[in-house]
This record gives sequence, structure tokens and C-alpha cells, in this order.
Amino acid sequence: MWVSLAGAVLCCVVMFVINWWAALLTNVIVLALYIYVSYKKPDVNWGSSTQALMYNKALTHSLHLTGVEDHIKNFRPQCLVMSGYPNSRPALLYLVHAFTKNVGLMVCGHVRTGFRRPNYKDMMNEQVRYQRWLLKTQIKAFYTPVFADDLRQGAQYLLQTTGLGRLKPNTLVFGFKNNWRNGEMKDVETYINTIHDAFDLQFGVVLLRLKEGLDISHIQDEIQTSQEKAPGMKDLLVSINIKDFDSDSSKPSSKSTSCQSSPLIFRDTKKPPMQLSPADEKLLTASQQFQKKQSKGTIDVWWLFDDGGLTLLIPYLLTNKNKWRDCKIRVFIGGKINRIDHDLSIHCKKMFEEMIEPYRLNEDDMEQEAAEKLKAEEPWRITDNELELYRAKSNRQIRLNELLKEHSSTANLIVITMPLARKGTVSSALYMTWLDTLTKDLPPILLVRGNHQSVLTFYS
Amino acid sequence: MWVSLAGAVLCCVVMFVINWWAALLTNVIVLALYIYVSYKKPDVNWGSSTQALMYNKALTHSLHLTGVEDHIKNFRPQCLVMSGYPNSRPALLYLVHAFTKNVGLMVCGHVRTGFRRPNYKDMMNEQVRYQRWLLKTQIKAFYTPVFADDLRQGAQYLLQTTGLGRLKPNTLVFGFKNNWRNGEMKDVETYINTIHDAFDLQFGVVLLRLKEGLDISHIQDEIQTSQEKAPGMKDLLVSINIKDFDSDSSKPSSKSTSCQSSPLIFRDTKKPPMQLSPADEKLLTASQQFQKKQSKGTIDVWWLFDDGGLTLLIPYLLTNKNKWRDCKIRVFIGGKINRIDHDLSIHCKKMFEEMIEPYRLNEDDMEQEAAEKLKAEEPWRITDNELELYRAKSNRQIRLNELLKEHSSTANLIVITMPLARKGTVSSALYMTWLDTLTKDLPPILLVRGNHQSVLTFYS
Repeated sequence: MWVSLAGAVLCCVVMFVINWWAALLTNVIVLALYIYVSYKKPDVNWGSSTQALMYNKALTHSLHLTGVEDHIKNFRPQCLVMSGYPNSRPALLYLVHAFTKNVGLMVCGHVRTGFRRPNYKDMMNEQVRYQRWLLKTQIKAFYTPVFADDLRQGAQYLLQTTGLGRLKPNTLVFGFKNNWRNGEMKDVETYINTIHDAFDLQFGVVLLRLKEGLDISHIQDEIQTSQEKAPGMKDLLVSINIKDFDSDSSKPSSKSTSCQSSPLIFRDTKKPPMQLSPADEKLLTASQQFQKKQSKGTIDVWWLFDDGGLTLLIPYLLTNKNKWRDCKIRVFIGGKINRIDHDLSIHCKKMFEEMIEPYRLNEDDMEQEAAEKLKAEEPWRITDNELELYRAKSNRQIRLNELLKEHSSTANLIVITMPLARKGTVSSALYMTWLDTLTKDLPPILLVRGNHQSVLTFYS
Repeated sequence: MWVSLAGAVLCCVVMFVINWWAALLTNVIVLALYIYVSYKKPDVNWGSSTQALMYNKALTHSLHLTGVEDHIKNFRPQCLVMSGYPNSRPALLYLVHAFTKNVGLMVCGHVRTGFRRPNYKDMMNEQVRYQRWLLKTQIKAFYTPVFADDLRQGAQYLLQTTGLGRLKPNTLVFGFKNNWRNGEMKDVETYINTIHDAFDLQFGVVLLRLKEGLDISHIQDEIQTSQEKAPGMKDLLVSINIKDFDSDSSKPSSKSTSCQSSPLIFRDTKKPPMQLSPADEKLLTASQQFQKKQSKGTIDVWWLFDDGGLTLLIPYLLTNKNKWRDCKIRVFIGGKINRIDHDLSIHCKKMFEEMIEPYRLNEDDMEQEAAEKLKAEEPWRITDNELELYRAKSNRQIRLNELLKEHSSTANLIVITMPLARKGTVSSALYMTWLDTLTKDLPPILLVRGNHQSVLTFYS
């Protein structure tokens, strides 16, 4: 390298020695051209050696990292966020970014169903576009779309193989499926199974629930449509042709897999170009709450089960960030397990009964054979036996929800240990009902469950 | 950071001011302890901040890299090698490493079939162990095992989601399935479909064939067994308990998916602990040929179809390396396409006919319905129609093999454009026969096919 530099300098010197005025003229012309180019900054990719160097650095450092062994002091939450298109669930994206930024890896996974063959090139182009969007909004994340038969298989693809060496996610972050009671139960089955898969593959799991919902892609779509109708307006959006996208606002949390193109820049919401429905208005406001600095308040941690400490680590990392600096952490710890069942209001219990009613198998009222057949066909159904077996656990979720409402209804964020259900013994519908009951009508709530790997030095 | 340093220095100064001899004594003791620890180097992972820094560097650089756009000057072969356990196909591993080292990414993919649930922790442990083995042998690669239903699905997992951002493989490297005629045709179907999948997903494909075969895991296993019988011998191998592993030497190239544990260090082969069969002896020698410096010779490139230039780039990168420095590149380019069919020896043609005989459908000799049924059941069968349609192409493979034998039988390595077959129109058996015919009885041969992305600045 130094030899080349010396050679270049020598060349210049010789040039001047041979014919000084011609050399001077040449230099002036070259300099003028250089200044012109660097002033105009044409949008050309020169394929410079800097880029090659960046590649080499990234590769070398990733390879070095494989030599580092795991240590509790260096544990960090590396999140795989099932975000769909990165701009369709901003609340999820910004909250996770708040605790992974500069600390850990963040991968935005996007499972696309449908035929791979004709759509693959589209996906590649979109990957480039959304990765650029992430860079522009300064979210330090990788966008990884994947084609699969369904959400579960796609999640398995991502869980097993994303990442390189030690730069590999260890925590799966999901949005809560707010609309589970309206959609098909098959989707709930897939959703719950994905959670089980994550635990099987030694991942921690984090679920975020906003009572307003998470997915705003249908709103962005509407805004964009109205924009195109009124072309005189200031063009804040990158204009993209909209393909046939069936906007259904009733499914705020379903993984959107149709091939819509969403606007890449958020619209200034202070002067909406058209009247949104009140629900959408709320949803939009809620979805942007984690982009602003958080007001003075509390992050309430309900540490009910010791799963390694992830439930504590995440709020701690949050308060390290500027946006969350004014929030205090309050930790609630479980008391005696029997006490919880006593003071249970009848009203809440009735609500729970009503909620599970449509999903019960009710095998006592049927022939045994018919019951077995139905169970085989619809494995998510709740058997009476199961309901009896887990009555205590069901009651606990109801009571916890009451306690949460009593103590944490003004918190900025609640972080609580996620209840577990063993695969095969608890049906998807019952598990989903637990999660729903536990998190109902509350401020933003994070359900967290580590993979029993210790993450706090507190233990060692 | 600097404030902390200043504080520390100040503390030391104050210490000496207060009581100089006690301070001196303390310092001496601390220094002695430090020297003792750094001299003994106990095998303890301290979880130091250096490790945290390495993680941060790797992450930051990988993130920076996402901002870099593709450019032809910065193209590099990033290989996903289907190596199974990294030490079971050394020839494949070392050859690929020769052209990716310090230049591009190399990922060793390993598809494991069988039940995921009980074996997952085993796999995690093995991943750590084999990654350490790769580090020790100074092969700069990532080992990525994955659980899947079959080879094809596993390959899809790896093709779609390994890597982070731009550190993502773009070339799939396989060993040639030498034993395809002995095994089940279902495996061949899977094998060929994996190749098609790779092309669908915009990957380049490279196949390596050694006439002796690639997989030496059964030999390592035998050596290890004999070692355990004679415990007095020098323990060159890391001793691992062998689980039930059915060693079948007839399948040198099949993806081994049983849960054997292979020895992690190669045995010194100059004094084999027991007599290997001549075939195994040859296989072992062949598998180590790319670890040594290559003797003076040629790398013959048969550039028959313009697929973007990968066929030329790989040999060029090879000759840049010290081991391959003495090899010259000779490039053969296709002439007129008609000429090739003329001078075809009858002997070779007969051999080809014999080879495909067992896989033909022979629908002309059967009822139409029976033929259709058989075709539906065994889609890999070659129909007469297809054979007629592709007679010219079949003949070309036979003739090419003759030409290769004539001109390149002494080459150190042959690199040749891989013939393509459109999915659905050419049956797996016929395609496999083409590949087999083309590469028969030759020195190490690489079949290469780019994804039609230009990789040489020559084009632009």
C-alpha cells in the first residue's frame, strides 16, 4: 500500500520535472473535474473500493465473533421481530428498537405466503426498498422477507437460520393477535404453534399488545389513495402504484401477506388529508406513541416467574434510552399462590366463561365417538376435562388482570411474565383466552418469557 | 471514557500521597497476581468487555454494509456449501475455501432430518463444537445446521434465510451424488429439485465431482473405532462416544444425517492404525488433495455458455492463492454447435443407452393408462418422447465427455459450464444422466452455472 503511494508521489514529481506548465495545467483540470463531481453528487454507484473494504470488515468481524464464547455478562436480547412490512407496525418496531439499538441485533422478519416462482423478483426489489427505508428512518435493523406455505413454516425458516454465527436472534417478538376471535381458528392454531416452536428452538418470546391494535397498513393505504386522487397536494409520500389490496380494517393484527405496496414515508398526521374513522385515528396515534419521548411515568414490571431475567432486562435497557429516561421502574413480585384465587369477582369470571364458550368441545353432551372425531378435526377445541384441570390457572389470569387494572392502569408500559402452556396438553383456544384475559383493557403491555438462560449477573 | 481514566490515575496518586509504602505493597501484590494469571492462562471465559466490543463491531459493520448497493466491481462468490458435518467432505471444504478465503462469505450448511424436539440441544452443542473445529483448522466459515423434513426443504431454509443483510450467500455448492444409481430414485428427485430451487432463488450453482467420492465420514468413524479398541495408541483424536452409526461405504456422497459423532481432528494418515480397503485409501488421498500445494499444471476452463462469468471468476480467484499459484488457466470456448454431433463414437453412445435403460418409462410398450399411472407415481422416469426431443443434447454431453478426456485428462482441475434442464420438461433421471455422463472418469471437475448476474467488469 505504502509502496503504491510512494510511486504515485514520485510520478507527480517526475511529471513536474519533465514539463512543469503542462503538469500544472493537467492538475488544475483534474482538480476542477473532481470539485465539479463532488459538488454535483450525481446518483451513481461507482463500486468504490470503500465498499469492498466495508464488506471485508463486516465479514472479518463476524468471523472473529464466532471465536467468542457465550458469557452471561455479554448476553443481549437479539430480536427477531415478526413485523411484516417494516412500516406497517410502527409501535412494535420502535419499541423493540428502543431496547436493541446499539446493544443487540434486530431482524425484521416478514413471512409471505403464496406462490414463490413469479413473485420472487418482486420480493427482492422490495427487500432493497424497505432496507433503504429502515436506513432512512435510522432504525438499525435487517429486513428479511421469506416465502413459505404459512406463517408457522416461515417463522421456522427464520428462527432456525437467520443470522450468521453469533449474530443470531435469540428472542422472538410478535404482535398480539387482537382479532383472533373474528378470524378463523386455524390461524390461531398457527399463531400459538409458532410460539411453541420458538420455545422449542430455545428462543425467548415477547408479545406486545396495544388495545388499539398494531397494524396500520390499511390506513397508510387509504391515505395514499386519497393522495392520488388529489395530485395537487404536497407529495410527502413516495408514489408507488397500488396493486389490488383488499383493505380490511377488521384485521388490525393479522400478518398482511397480500402484495400491497405501502407508502414509504409517514404522512404528517397533523393535517390529515381526509377524515379517518375514529378507530383508525386512535390506532394511528397509538402506533406512534413510542416514537415520541415518554412522559414522566412508570414502567411496571410484574415478575411472576423466574425465567432467567429477560423480564427485568428489557425494561432496564429501555430506561437507558433518552426517550424513556423519565420513566421509573416498579417491580411487582408474586406473593403466595393460594391467596390469588380467593377474591375473584363473579363478573370477571362470567366474562371469561363467555369468551371461551364458542371454542368448547362440550364432549359431555355428545356421543364419545362424535366428540373424538370433532377433536381430531378441530384440535384447538377446549375439552371439559382440560378446563377442569386448568381451572386454577384460568382463575389466576382473571385475577391478575384485575390486579393489573388496579395498580398499573396509568403506567407507560407494563412488562409481565407470559403464562406458559405445555404443547399438546393445553388447547390453542384456551391458551389464547388466557393471554387475552390477562392483557385486556390495559396500557401497552409486553408479555415476556425468557428461554431459561440466565441473562443477569445477579444469578452467578 | 477519558474522565474515567483521569479519575483512576488520580486515585493512584492520592493513594501514594496518603501512605506511600502501603500503596507500593498493594501495587506489587496486584501486579504479581496479574502476571501469575496471564502466565498460567486458565481456561476461563471472563466475559470481558473486549468480547462485547467485538460483538458491537461485527453488528455495526454489518449494518453499515446494508447501505452499500450492489455493484459489479464488488461482486464476490458467497458460497453456501452443503457440506454436512464440516469435517466429512474435506475436498469440498478446502476447494471452496481456496476461492472464498479473505474474499467472500462461506457458510457450511448441514441439513439434519429426523425429529427436532429431543435432538435440538445436541445440535446446538455440535454447532459450537464444529464451529470451534473450523476456527482451529483456520477455515473461515460459518457452520449452520438446520432441522428439516428432507434435504430439499432444509436447503430451502438455508437458501432463503441464512445471512444478514448483504452478507448472504449467492452461490450454492454441492458435492456430486456419485452413488445415485445405487440409492433410491426419490433421493435423486430431491437432489435435482434442490438444484432447481437454487436457480429459482437466483443462486448460482457449483457441483464438485471427484471420481473417488467426497464423503469420508465412514473412514473417520472406522479409524476412531479401531482407536478405541487400542487405547494405548497416541490419542490424536478427540474421543467422543460413538452412537449407533450404520457405516455404509457404498454411499460416499449421500448427505449423512444420522447422528454419528465424527472425530474432530484428522488422523495422521502416514501410519494408518489399520488396513483400509484400497477404495477407502484412494478416497482418503483424494479428499486431501486440495489441502496441499498444487503441482505445476493447468486449470482447464470450458466456457460453453455465457452465464455472467462465474465460470471464469472462480478459477481466476483460485490462481490468486498461494496453493494454486503454479497452475495456468486454459480456456476452451465452444465452436459451432452442429459439428459436435458428427464424430460420436458408437461405444460411448451405447454406454449412455445402458445407463438410462433402468429409468425409462418405455410407454410405447405399455397401455397408455398404465404408462400415465406409472409416470404419476414415479415422475423421475424418462419418457420416450422426452428422449427423442433431447437426443441432440444427450449426444452433446457424450461428445463433450470425450473431448474432455482428450484434452483435459491431466488437468489439476476442470471447470465447465453446467448443462441446464428446464424444470418439468426434463425428468430428474435424464438430467442426472447428463451430469454423470459429462463428468465421468475425469480429474476433479467443477460444474458451474451462474445466475445470469454479470460478475466480470468485462461486460460493462
